[in-house]
Amino acid sequence: MGARIGVGLLGLGTVGGGVASILLSPQERHPLVADLELIRVAVRDLQRPRPVDLSPEQLTTDPQTVVEDPRVDVVVEVIGGIEPARSLILAAIKAGKSVVTANKAVIARHGGEIAQAAAAAGVYVLIEAAVGGGIPIIEPLKQSLGGNRINRVSGIINGTTNYILTRMADEGAAYEDVLAEAQRLGYAEADPAADVDGLDAADKIAILSTLAFGGGVDRQSIPTEGISRLQGEDVDYARQLGYGVKLLAVAERMATSEASAEALALSLRVQPTLVPSHHPLAGVQGVNNAILVEGDPIGQVMFYGPGAGAGPTASAVVADILNIAGIRQASGGDGRLDPLLAAGSWRSCSLVDPGNVRQRHYVRFNTQDAPGVIGRIGGCFGDRDISIQSIVQFNASSAGAEIVVITHEVDQRRMDEALAAIRALPEVSGLAAHLGCL
Amino acid sequence: MGARIGVGLLGLGTVGGGVASILLSPQERHPLVADLELIRVAVRDLQRPRPVDLSPEQLTTDPQTVVEDPRVDVVVEVIGGIEPARSLILAAIKAGKSVVTANKAVIARHGGEIAQAAAAAGVYVLIEAAVGGGIPIIEPLKQSLGGNRINRVSGIINGTTNYILTRMADEGAAYEDVLAEAQRLGYAEADPAADVDGLDAADKIAILSTLAFGGGVDRQSIPTEGISRLQGEDVDYARQLGYGVKLLAVAERMATSEASAEALALSLRVQPTLVPSHHPLAGVQGVNNAILVEGDPIGQVMFYGPGAGAGPTASAVVADILNIAGIRQASGGDGRLDPLLAAGSWRSCSLVDPGNVRQRHYVRFNTQDAPGVIGRIGGCFGDRDISIQSIVQFNASSAGAEIVVITHEVDQRRMDEALAAIRALPEVSGLAAHLGCL
Repeated sequence: MGARIGVGLLGLGTVGGGVASILLSPQERHPLVADLELIRVAVRDLQRPRPVDLSPEQLTTDPQTVVEDPRVDVVVEVIGGIEPARSLILAAIKAGKSVVTANKAVIARHGGEIAQAAAAAGVYVLIEAAVGGGIPIIEPLKQSLGGNRINRVSGIINGTTNYILTRMADEGAAYEDVLAEAQRLGYAEADPAADVDGLDAADKIAILSTLAFGGGVDRQSIPTEGISRLQGEDVDYARQLGYGVKLLAVAERMATSEASAEALALSLRVQPTLVPSHHPLAGVQGVNNAILVEGDPIGQVMFYGPGAGAGPTASAVVADILNIAGIRQASGGDGRLDPLLAAGSWRSCSLVDPGNVRQRHYVRFNTQDAPGVIGRIGGCFGDRDISIQSIVQFNASSAGAEIVVITHEVDQRRMDEALAAIRALPEVSGLAAHLGCL
Repeated sequence: MGARIGVGLLGLGTVGGGVASILLSPQERHPLVADLELIRVAVRDLQRPRPVDLSPEQLTTDPQTVVEDPRVDVVVEVIGGIEPARSLILAAIKAGKSVVTANKAVIARHGGEIAQAAAAAGVYVLIEAAVGGGIPIIEPLKQSLGGNRINRVSGIINGTTNYILTRMADEGAAYEDVLAEAQRLGYAEADPAADVDGLDAADKIAILSTLAFGGGVDRQSIPTEGISRLQGEDVDYARQLGYGVKLLAVAERMATSEASAEALALSLRVQPTLVPSHHPLAGVQGVNNAILVEGDPIGQVMFYGPGAGAGPTASAVVADILNIAGIRQASGGDGRLDPLLAAGSWRSCSLVDPGNVRQRHYVRFNTQDAPGVIGRIGGCFGDRDISIQSIVQFNASSAGAEIVVITHEVDQRRMDEALAAIRALPEVSGLAAHLGCL
């Protein structure tokens, strides 16, 4: 039995309650859990009934007293949102305490400022719960994959949209209908924008990219497209062509970058993407998340599990507290940090011009059902040296037809030129869909 | 830049060469890799050409000089086999050095002795590369999942057999033919027993179980069945019923166990098992591995990736060296250990009587094509309160028929009684196959 570690909890909602419940029932868990002592908990309302048994002295409505309590070694922030979370995290760091947070929004936007303050104070800020719920992905990126040159991190990191996409694919249901039911079931918020517009996934891929490549990028500049404009027929056509549609978040190293003093060029993006049905990400169903890491020499590894929920998220929070407790027992907490666990940035990264990003594309055109239209569309691609994997006509009738094209890899700029040329064809009445494709 | 860490390498085969190659090219990897210095390397033959550029002074044919070199902080053992690997690991520990090893055989058999010596000497013995090749699974079990009560660890942890099973399923090929080709391609050894008889998987599940449940079990008592008796028709019938056949290794907590001073009751086993096609493990193809961890409150998480190969295994070895280097920079290496990373046993575990293990079963009988035989077989199960999910007759002809039964969960003892009764039926000429079923 080592030194006891005092834990202060900011927030006692579903995740906070899950954390408290683990700390109060250490039996059958790692024995180090028994060394964690829940000291104080900041809540909004002292009178509200709680699922965990806490004494009145442990509860307070003033989070500052938790941060300042000298018995608290680690502050756990599970309030969410930007403020007061950001200020409380910085106050805890200033008070010499390590911080554990599940707050992706504050880390994606203020991670640099927070990391700098933590390094100056000699404390840890750990964020396993901020991405992928219970899935261990932050620690593996920081510790287990450090020998690799990481080339790409991609994944399904928003459970709400994956739930919607899974049901659209399984039932041929329309987006609006599934969203409404997801809201009724509590899988989607009343205001679903953060999920369905891809903003939550963009926060998370910004965090993963910082860890994978050693430096942050401007969160606001990440090209982000959600699923709210996705149409059921594209999910159906994709399936007929051997693909599933997933909301993928991607961070990848661009080919030209070299190890130098200059910034490492990255592409980050969030977009609905066709995934071949044999691809490991294609089988990720419902509210699950999965993150695929590609590097040299490891090849591909994937981490899969529940992307949200009180239990899984609490598991990740407790993992971080345990890591701090373990290293404190080894080091005595004298302010020297484990550089893997501390995970400071070690170089600058920048986003490339999206026009230079190469990938495969899925596009669907509404056309007249006229002879030669497939040839003319194919010609617009061929004229710009864009190779096509397939052109397929769906739903031909006197009213017109739909033509679906899947290209090989091409940069966005040339793709846009080809699309402009195709839209100018007299037989083409419009570009009905445009998705990425793995 | 922190203190440099001296690395001594025992063995320069494919994995050792991969490790050396990472250490000699730190660019684009975690900056801590640049703090690792390859000091000395023990090889069998000094004259053999090497893929990495080492000076003659770095090479020796005497592993003991590597272990004893005062500049060496971490000894990496990638010789394999039991001896001299075990003695060299113990000698390194005695010399006060941390050890990193990819040697599942020595850890599965002598892990207790080695862990005890390491704890006494205040050094780490890290084994990420021993299970799952490059997949981070040891570190997550030790560090990221410590807040959980682990209930089950199961997985596909032998790449050779999964390659064989994948080709049998995809091509309808016979076991012997695929094995011969796997040997020609270098995916299977000339003597394939360790892989196809499940011994390698049993070594690995013994190691995972020790970490998941906090104590070791007797390696030799793990019920182990390989794939060498598996017949192509069972792979085919399983597919028709919506299952794939995988060689699964399982370690699970038995229902009756309580947190007490007594040993925790576990079931460990290796056996060919039907996996429903929608299950996350069903999609694991070829030489890939995947490990599914189930716990409370996390639910299910899965780790997937390349289960073998020089690059992935070297990635895991370097991860362990980095972990030791990182914690040394935090603690100054004064002999206090991080209890998560050190991962000592904290309780005793024991294997239950296999007769008490409950699971679903797949059995195939050769029978006469007589009316009523399905009813009589069903009756033998029903008489013993064994629920059946399906009974299907395949290949009926005048020569006889094959009857395949998939049961619900039942303990092994009652299942054996039912099988004895069925074999005694005059219409049944034999039990042709008996596999597990998820």
